[in-house]
Amino acid sequence: MIRAGIVGATGYTGVELLRLLAPRDDVELSVVTSRELDSVPVAKHFPNLRNHVELTFSSANDEQLKACDVVFFATPHAVAMNTVPALLEAGVKVIDLSADFRIQNIELWEHWYNTKHACPELVSEAVYGLPEVNREKIKTANFVAVPGCYPTAIQLGFLPLLENQLVDASRLIADAKSGVSGAGRKAVEDYLLTEATESIKAYGVTGHRHHPEICQGLNHASASTVGLTFIPHLTPMIRGILATLYAPVKNGLNVTQEQLQSLFEDRYSNEPFVEVLPGGDYPATRNVKGSNRCEISVTYLDDTDTVLVLSAEDNLVKGASGQAIQNMNLMFGLEETAGLQGIALLP
Amino acid sequence: MIRAGIVGATGYTGVELLRLLAPRDDVELSVVTSRELDSVPVAKHFPNLRNHVELTFSSANDEQLKACDVVFFATPHAVAMNTVPALLEAGVKVIDLSADFRIQNIELWEHWYNTKHACPELVSEAVYGLPEVNREKIKTANFVAVPGCYPTAIQLGFLPLLENQLVDASRLIADAKSGVSGAGRKAVEDYLLTEATESIKAYGVTGHRHHPEICQGLNHASASTVGLTFIPHLTPMIRGILATLYAPVKNGLNVTQEQLQSLFEDRYSNEPFVEVLPGGDYPATRNVKGSNRCEISVTYLDDTDTVLVLSAEDNLVKGASGQAIQNMNLMFGLEETAGLQGIALLP
Amino acid sequence: MIRAGIVGATGYTGVELLRLLAPRDDVELSVVTSRELDSVPVAKHFPNLRNHVELTFSSANDEQLKACDVVFFATPHAVAMNTVPALLEAGVKVIDLSADFRIQNIELWEHWYNTKHACPELVSEAVYGLPEVNREKIKTANFVAVPGCYPTAIQLGFLPLLENQLVDASRLIADAKSGVSGAGRKAVEDYLLTEATESIKAYGVTGHRHHPEICQGLNHASASTVGLTFIPHLTPMIRGILATLYAPVKNGLNVTQEQLQSLFEDRYSNEPFVEVLPGGDYPATRNVKGSNRCEISVTYLDDTDTVLVLSAEDNLVKGASGQAIQNMNLMFGLEETAGLQGIALLP
Amino acid sequence: MIRAGIVGATGYTGVELLRLLAPRDDVELSVVTSRELDSVPVAKHFPNLRNHVELTFSSANDEQLKACDVVFFATPHAVAMNTVPALLEAGVKVIDLSADFRIQNIELWEHWYNTKHACPELVSEAVYGLPEVNREKIKTANFVAVPGCYPTAIQLGFLPLLENQLVDASRLIADAKSGVSGAGRKAVEDYLLTEATESIKAYGVTGHRHHPEICQGLNHASASTVGLTFIPHLTPMIRGILATLYAPVKNGLNVTQEQLQSLFEDRYSNEPFVEVLPGGDYPATRNVKGSNRCEISVTYLDDTDTVLVLSAEDNLVKGASGQAIQNMNLMFGLEETAGLQGIALLP
Repeated sequence: MIRAGIVGATGYTGVELLRLLAPRDDVELSVVTSRELDSVPVAKHFPNLRNHVELTFSSANDEQLKACDVVFFATPHAVAMNTVPALLEAGVKVIDLSADFRIQNIELWEHWYNTKHACPELVSEAVYGLPEVNREKIKTANFVAVPGCYPTAIQLGFLPLLENQLVDASRLIADAKSGVSGAGRKAVEDYLLTEATESIKAYGVTGHRHHPEICQGLNHASASTVGLTFIPHLTPMIRGILATLYAPVKNGLNVTQEQLQSLFEDRYSNEPFVEVLPGGDYPATRNVKGSNRCEISVTYLDDTDTVLVLSAEDNLVKGASGQAIQNMNLMFGLEETAGLQGIALLP
Repeated sequence: MIRAGIVGATGYTGVELLRLLAPRDDVELSVVTSRELDSVPVAKHFPNLRNHVELTFSSANDEQLKACDVVFFATPHAVAMNTVPALLEAGVKVIDLSADFRIQNIELWEHWYNTKHACPELVSEAVYGLPEVNREKIKTANFVAVPGCYPTAIQLGFLPLLENQLVDASRLIADAKSGVSGAGRKAVEDYLLTEATESIKAYGVTGHRHHPEICQGLNHASASTVGLTFIPHLTPMIRGILATLYAPVKNGLNVTQEQLQSLFEDRYSNEPFVEVLPGGDYPATRNVKGSNRCEISVTYLDDTDTVLVLSAEDNLVKGASGQAIQNMNLMFGLEETAGLQGIALLP
Repeated sequence: MIRAGIVGATGYTGVELLRLLAPRDDVELSVVTSRELDSVPVAKHFPNLRNHVELTFSSANDEQLKACDVVFFATPHAVAMNTVPALLEAGVKVIDLSADFRIQNIELWEHWYNTKHACPELVSEAVYGLPEVNREKIKTANFVAVPGCYPTAIQLGFLPLLENQLVDASRLIADAKSGVSGAGRKAVEDYLLTEATESIKAYGVTGHRHHPEICQGLNHASASTVGLTFIPHLTPMIRGILATLYAPVKNGLNVTQEQLQSLFEDRYSNEPFVEVLPGGDYPATRNVKGSNRCEISVTYLDDTDTVLVLSAEDNLVKGASGQAIQNMNLMFGLEETAGLQGIALLP
Repeated sequence: MIRAGIVGATGYTGVELLRLLAPRDDVELSVVTSRELDSVPVAKHFPNLRNHVELTFSSANDEQLKACDVVFFATPHAVAMNTVPALLEAGVKVIDLSADFRIQNIELWEHWYNTKHACPELVSEAVYGLPEVNREKIKTANFVAVPGCYPTAIQLGFLPLLENQLVDASRLIADAKSGVSGAGRKAVEDYLLTEATESIKAYGVTGHRHHPEICQGLNHASASTVGLTFIPHLTPMIRGILATLYAPVKNGLNVTQEQLQSLFEDRYSNEPFVEVLPGGDYPATRNVKGSNRCEISVTYLDDTDTVLVLSAEDNLVKGASGQAIQNMNLMFGLEETAGLQGIALLP
């Protein structure tokens, strides 16, 4: 029985961790922390968990957390970095859903997050938790930084192209559309139903924090330096990310639809949570609502000699909490898919 | 040219007043106040007003307001009551969209709004601005309290039945459904898209502030005391109120569908903004989105000897800002429909 | 291993049956029929089932269906009644999600469904599959008629009041709000996103087919004849029913909030899928999205001496496919909750 | 008084034409045709038009149409081409909202619309009705082909860049997001609320009919041949198109944000319906809901030396019916903005 703790479980990644962990026989939820909701029953805050989770929120309690086998951080950035070192020292495995340990270049992180990093020395110890890239490292890791939602969808889409040097890595474009839950459960005017529904807009146009994370991951896979234009869009729905990815074929190369299709199918043939769609089918976020699956299609556009990749995920599952648990499964030697086989809710 | 001021125009009733007043040739927007947005261009805050409204928000400025011919209060409750007296004294007409002067029983108001009333002596001077009831009084009024959104839809639906003593006034039920804009533009978790869309729930179950206002209005029309069960529901849409009204036919009376239909048609035949639908047609909030119209159907349910009235309005227009302007038109001797003939946006 | 067949599985109750049955170890999906989609892979039609369901739709095939242990009918009305007899004769258990066998009064059924019933003699053999009422009968039944979506939410809400004769049964009102999936997956203009979103309207105002079904169920529980006003509303969301139920306290009776709360808690204390909310909490359809749970609150409104019950369910789960499987579990002597413990998806 | 007729006014561009024309003093709606709805009052079909439009649909009637001063075609493709010649001969001005006369290359049109063109000889007589490009020609035209919804948003966004040869015209990308009303009012499963809400997907991935139209327009403005990747997306909202446009700066050129901002502001300074947003502001479709305005922002992305243009319109107004009326105003020597000054509905 794995004793699991969750720090900062009052938001949407928190409730998803709870939804996915509560039914498991091999995991015991030991402690769920929240300063503001101290002593409030979890199920009062998240009514979907009534009769499924009997715990009460408690203020972060070091002793309780240290008694866990694994602690998830579902906190905003700049929180985990203060607590993680003590937990790791106490032998607790840590899975951080926040951005604190995703970027290896400390200076870059500090620039984008506008914060001094509290424990830069640990950054290089954190394994970047994208199983489709780092599965073996994750299996032996004590400390995993879970990729962001956009970075997951976008990396999974571009990786096969870059690994095979098929496209001009300096001219990648990721036009991404996210549901409003990506902004978290914060009382901010912009995310009111009255402001966000029946409308679509771009945001983070001049720079988004996921940009350096995506580039770091793509650069690992690419022989030449990646140049990425990344424009996220706020889309009037609760969940889901669709990344529309454009990559020009490398000068002088000939590619075909069949070749691309095979390439993607081969790359992901053993991946339980990446589904390369058959030719002629395209992803929609509704197909993965609530599931840990990422749907991908690849299309060769011959008139502009461009590869189009469409990549859809549930930002709260494969883009956050589901992937966190996928990492946990690997770290504890469990079946990678344990507790993550839930079918998407359609319609 | 009527010089108009708006106090507290940063919310949804504010932007609707501006949308409806800006195109008019006979009204000049003189001052639009907001403490927090002092010096911010109105069109920066409300991008739909770009090139339509050139004003800048200013802190409430007594001199500017006193120089107006009419001042609208689009403020939360307990604001207008502090400023109205000075404006009336200065000869400015006042149209208050808030609840401060709607309820004649001061004690009742203080109970429901949990506030000491700052100028109880003025309450009886405020004309309740429901033109379908008080048109003549409004024409000569200097001070109008604009009805709330639910009270407008519900009173218009019940009035013909009560005025004609057809139903048992002690057993009225109003099951009302409102879009989220009824909650205003406040950064509150419950109204986030992620919380409010794809769900419906009742609220204010044990008491809603509009209850005494509705009862006051219905009691004016009813020979016997009104007993009203009023349950509002938060509905996943931006705009619109649908009130589903149930009234048992008075013991011993016989009513027919034809009689009810005629009764309603007659009652509202001269009303420019109340549309009694032909038999077999029923209201939908989409039919009145953005318009000042209230759609009403009446149906006799013979198996339970009950009259069913359906009443639909745009809560921000006929339920607030449109009605406020309808009052202004009457107060200034203008055509009642001036500036309010906009057709609903469908789809 | 229970071999299960589904007739007419191309709509929303079909995909929900598949979503809930596919993960089970004790059920094998043997045959899924559809005339129009003959030979189409189920997962092509329902992309959420990719890699979860490998079956292909086939035209209704009597031999295959007769080889099943249980057959679900997820068909429009007037289909099951033609096929059920042969299956029952062949010893197959039948669970009919359609309306064909719900109403014991054949004449009444024929009136409302405007169809001659094809096998009236079987109607009395069908057990009405509301486990909270008929659990013991279901356990030994070979043939279950699964209640409709509205009837489930409304009966569960009114039953404790009627069973205890607390309210005037002749004056019940059910104001119900349903998501658009209640209309099924039919290409009908009214249910286009452009027509149905951002709006709410009543429908079936002068009569809805669920009315006689609800009355039949309530009359079983009531000492005096039920008079019910039932007005359904089309609500701009995919899933969910909220029933707002009004019942006047019986003349001369005194009831209290505490008493009602206890009554409801006691009535449903052993029910795995009915959750009576603690005082002060109220249902929202989002709390049960995708789950088999019905959330209920009861409130005494003293100013009008009325009992208000709020009842929320997912119309496709507890209101259809989940309840069908709950019946299957009972009929086969399995744990009643098997395969139905999924937590609602929130947000 | 201009006598106007509308052919095929039963869809969304039809109701928008009616909404915009009905309030005008200088236009008289003479005839509104529909074969299926012959004799049905227009306001029965479009309840928002009750009391605003008294007309009844009639079957297409040549005499009535020929008695008009102008006839709008709000028909699917391949309808107008059969009727336009007779009307033009009769001296009626024609404004065709369909695609029949937008593409000068007949062969190309026939390929994309998979139809033999019925009057190819008239194609070159049709003026492409984008006032921001063809204003002077429109003023003297008798026959205008109104641009498609995507083509309007995308051309307005790219034009200043191409006219000034700032970008590599061979590598343009248009990632466009459209509300569901773009699909028209057709009872098609894919556009049901249950299918289309809470999801986003790309469509027309391997080719969309607006592609040749966009390229034709861009090629007129470009010194070198345009290569365009155009991917439309179905977005869960009723109205609105957001086009996210990517254009790499031409090799060897240096551009700055200030220069781009000035260029766009200058290009559109006299355009009543194109709003270049100030630096730091970005379009959202909600800002133009119901209005004839196109909002545009331009941003220089220095890390990838790319120009990003965001262009938002209401697909049914500036993208269809509003633009049609803008053309009518020009053709009849009226104020270009007549009847088109309506402010967007926000929220």
